[in-house]
Amino acid sequence: MKATKHAISPTRNENYAEWYQQVVRAADLAENSSVRGCMVIKPWGYAIWEILQRELDKRIKETGHSNAYFPLFIPKSYLEREAAHVEGFAKECAVVTHSRLVQNEKGELIPASPLEEPLVVRPTSEVIIGESFARWIKSYRDLPLLINQWANVVRWEMRPRIFLRTTEFLWQEGHTAHATPEEAEEETRKMLEVYRTVAEKLMALPVIPGKKTAAERFPGAVETFSIEAMMQDGKALQAGTSHFLGQNFSRACGIKFIDKEGEEQFAWTSSWGVSTRLIGGLIMAHSDDDGLLLPPRLAPIQVVVLPVLRGEKEDASVLASGAELCHVLGQKCHGGEPLRVSFDDRDRRGGEKNWEHIKKGVPLRVELGTRDIAIGQVTFLLRDGGGKQSMAREEFVEAVPRLLGELQERIFAAALALRRERTIRVKNFDEFREFFSSGNGFVEAHFCGDGAIERRMREEFSVTARCIPLETEGNIGPCFADPSRQGPITLWARAY
Amino acid sequence: MKATKHAISPTRNENYAEWYQQVVRAADLAENSSVRGCMVIKPWGYAIWEILQRELDKRIKETGHSNAYFPLFIPKSYLEREAAHVEGFAKECAVVTHSRLVQNEKGELIPASPLEEPLVVRPTSEVIIGESFARWIKSYRDLPLLINQWANVVRWEMRPRIFLRTTEFLWQEGHTAHATPEEAEEETRKMLEVYRTVAEKLMALPVIPGKKTAAERFPGAVETFSIEAMMQDGKALQAGTSHFLGQNFSRACGIKFIDKEGEEQFAWTSSWGVSTRLIGGLIMAHSDDDGLLLPPRLAPIQVVVLPVLRGEKEDASVLASGAELCHVLGQKCHGGEPLRVSFDDRDRRGGEKNWEHIKKGVPLRVELGTRDIAIGQVTFLLRDGGGKQSMAREEFVEAVPRLLGELQERIFAAALALRRERTIRVKNFDEFREFFSSGNGFVEAHFCGDGAIERRMREEFSVTARCIPLETEGNIGPCFADPSRQGPITLWARAY
Repeated sequence: MKATKHAISPTRNENYAEWYQQVVRAADLAENSSVRGCMVIKPWGYAIWEILQRELDKRIKETGHSNAYFPLFIPKSYLEREAAHVEGFAKECAVVTHSRLVQNEKGELIPASPLEEPLVVRPTSEVIIGESFARWIKSYRDLPLLINQWANVVRWEMRPRIFLRTTEFLWQEGHTAHATPEEAEEETRKMLEVYRTVAEKLMALPVIPGKKTAAERFPGAVETFSIEAMMQDGKALQAGTSHFLGQNFSRACGIKFIDKEGEEQFAWTSSWGVSTRLIGGLIMAHSDDDGLLLPPRLAPIQVVVLPVLRGEKEDASVLASGAELCHVLGQKCHGGEPLRVSFDDRDRRGGEKNWEHIKKGVPLRVELGTRDIAIGQVTFLLRDGGGKQSMAREEFVEAVPRLLGELQERIFAAALALRRERTIRVKNFDEFREFFSSGNGFVEAHFCGDGAIERRMREEFSVTARCIPLETEGNIGPCFADPSRQGPITLWARAY
Repeated sequence: MKATKHAISPTRNENYAEWYQQVVRAADLAENSSVRGCMVIKPWGYAIWEILQRELDKRIKETGHSNAYFPLFIPKSYLEREAAHVEGFAKECAVVTHSRLVQNEKGELIPASPLEEPLVVRPTSEVIIGESFARWIKSYRDLPLLINQWANVVRWEMRPRIFLRTTEFLWQEGHTAHATPEEAEEETRKMLEVYRTVAEKLMALPVIPGKKTAAERFPGAVETFSIEAMMQDGKALQAGTSHFLGQNFSRACGIKFIDKEGEEQFAWTSSWGVSTRLIGGLIMAHSDDDGLLLPPRLAPIQVVVLPVLRGEKEDASVLASGAELCHVLGQKCHGGEPLRVSFDDRDRRGGEKNWEHIKKGVPLRVELGTRDIAIGQVTFLLRDGGGKQSMAREEFVEAVPRLLGELQERIFAAALALRRERTIRVKNFDEFREFFSSGNGFVEAHFCGDGAIERRMREEFSVTARCIPLETEGNIGPCFADPSRQGPITLWARAY
């Protein structure tokens, strides 16, 4: 390992897309399976997802939502109920047509027992959950109905990329129904804010919350909101979406209620989701040419203690001292949870173990040898650099939560600095073209909202309108592409 | 509500099967969806599942397993690799044959883009996980490999029954690989013991761990172990299974390793799982004619405080006092976790709220009125009867963990007493026939293991060999149906 300069080859500068695949492999996060477009999430990748899931689940419940579970299969006729929705999803869905396999005369298994109506494996669950909502909601007193589901979904992917675009992925999808459009839109924005908090505080990922243009809306939505993050190559990643669905799905599914005045009305609904795609964003935003770099709040192991063993009789005391250090550290907290500490006493070469933890992004490594123990000190390294540091053992134990907190802040600050450096405000199409002809980044430009302009930008530059940032929502000016028309500041980028 | 004697109609004695459906409905646990055989797990049912999941997940991790996630789809050719396995599952699987829907000339959506190879929605994941194991395992140093997955699975169900037999269900499936058959079999028994502990300590469900007869084995297994519970109607419910797979799946999937002597060998594997079916067992084992009865360890709400409001100015102090009581109770622990306390200050009739909590099985209800507050006492009711009790408020706060612990014990004791009462040891076929001709229960009988006898018992009495209990494994005697042959004591029952 020490012969090469970096653990990951190619580096980010050499080939960003391939570097990403190599980080996923080196950190042992996931792998492609033999089922095209479907991935296997390996233990280290799944452990990160579990932490993200637990933290998000806590916040979803704190905001009054309950978890429930709805069928994997959607009858074809249900999908047809909302025109824009079926248009958006029919072209990429897994269709179940038979309920058994039987052997033919050659001994081959062939599909048998055709279904009366084909079933679609859910690409998203608005229409199947809508069916339940229609049964559950009778009166304004049943509202708001605030439900969340953790599930797998399937959208057939022609150009799969691990974590970022997979045929099957894991996600949560919130679905809510309200008595007024104001309440439903407030919910939509509230959950966007929950996503922003999780992205920024846990993933150390600065994001721009905003409203999608009409062309970029979720199929069937009245408004779509998203959080957009910048990756290290300057491209955008949509990290979460929240949709105000108006009465489109309540009409399609028959979600009606009797209001306080005794009148029957259609409910106003919302839906919102984040997925395992977030792990792809986490990798691309923070990792370096040595592998994954995990924000401590999401690291399955925050501190690893590596005993330096020499095959001598002193080894026993090193092992005992290391176990004791882990025990003491495990009593400390970071982010309101006990520290996640691991003692790596596996019988392997120290260098090999060390590189494994670097590539997996463990935030803090302790190298514990006889000399350190003799003088009561701890030698440690932080994953984002700075080399070996030493500290008196007791002082170190107290300092770890602070060291991890500072690392978390540094990762966020670095991502924010990169985004600021690679974001420009443009006034006209020439500036826009010049920027995207020479590279990637975020462009802020007033935009009139004309879909034809969006199509042109996509065709000419592969650039899309990411969102209309909420922060500058009221800032209206002449459109960069058609100055005769006005519009809000809109964020443009190439996107994953 | 008070006009009828019981909240659930019919009662258990009147019609057990229908009583079960009505408890599911009254407790708002789940409902059938429009997709045949697929259920919707509603928030109260899902909350129970989440607790069960969290507790089981903790124990799965404590025994050294890591969670991971594998594809939903299995290529048809993979399923074909293990002969007994495909035989067991091909006849009830959902087959995906197309990857899009397109409109025909009539505007109907029809399946398009046929797949080169049909995919099966996983009924269980031995072969798809085996494919990964074959890649991950190279040397004895990669063993044991201890993996668990939380997932949905699909087995086409002709006679669905909510929670007990559904086309889609949620479960965990553990999959492990080992260097020796002894280790793999030890793992199989270890996880069976984890299941026994969860069933008995958390679900208050006494179970009989045992080995399946050859006829009842999992398709492809060398040995199958199960835990069997008795429901209140005397029928058996298989509550969890653990399989020693020998080298059958490692041969089918190519899971090979180089042993310490440098020789290539096939690994020895195990798999084990429990599912949302457990919730069906929970209902059928403990509930009564007023609805669900939840063991406190699994109750999403363990204590509900119901303020008695009279629409007068004293209401404010009742509400304040109730909130304070909830806060204080929330500081206490039961089963190592903070008490789950709910304050039901919804604007509804007291009787209606009270019955809702009874039907949902909340273990302890507190009725808090002005008089109680004035004299510093608490009036409460336990879900399993005994009527109203009073206690000084401070005393009550200290007593709640004990009251819940005692309730948990009583529920277990009642189920165990029922099982003992309805279990007999028989010596011969006449006794066997007499017992099952007049009703349900468990029969213990020496059995030679002849599959023809099992088939006859199934055909004549709908009775199956549930397991060979581990507790009496060495007790061999003349077979009840063929005294010329010997065999171990075997448990017989009609089963869900």
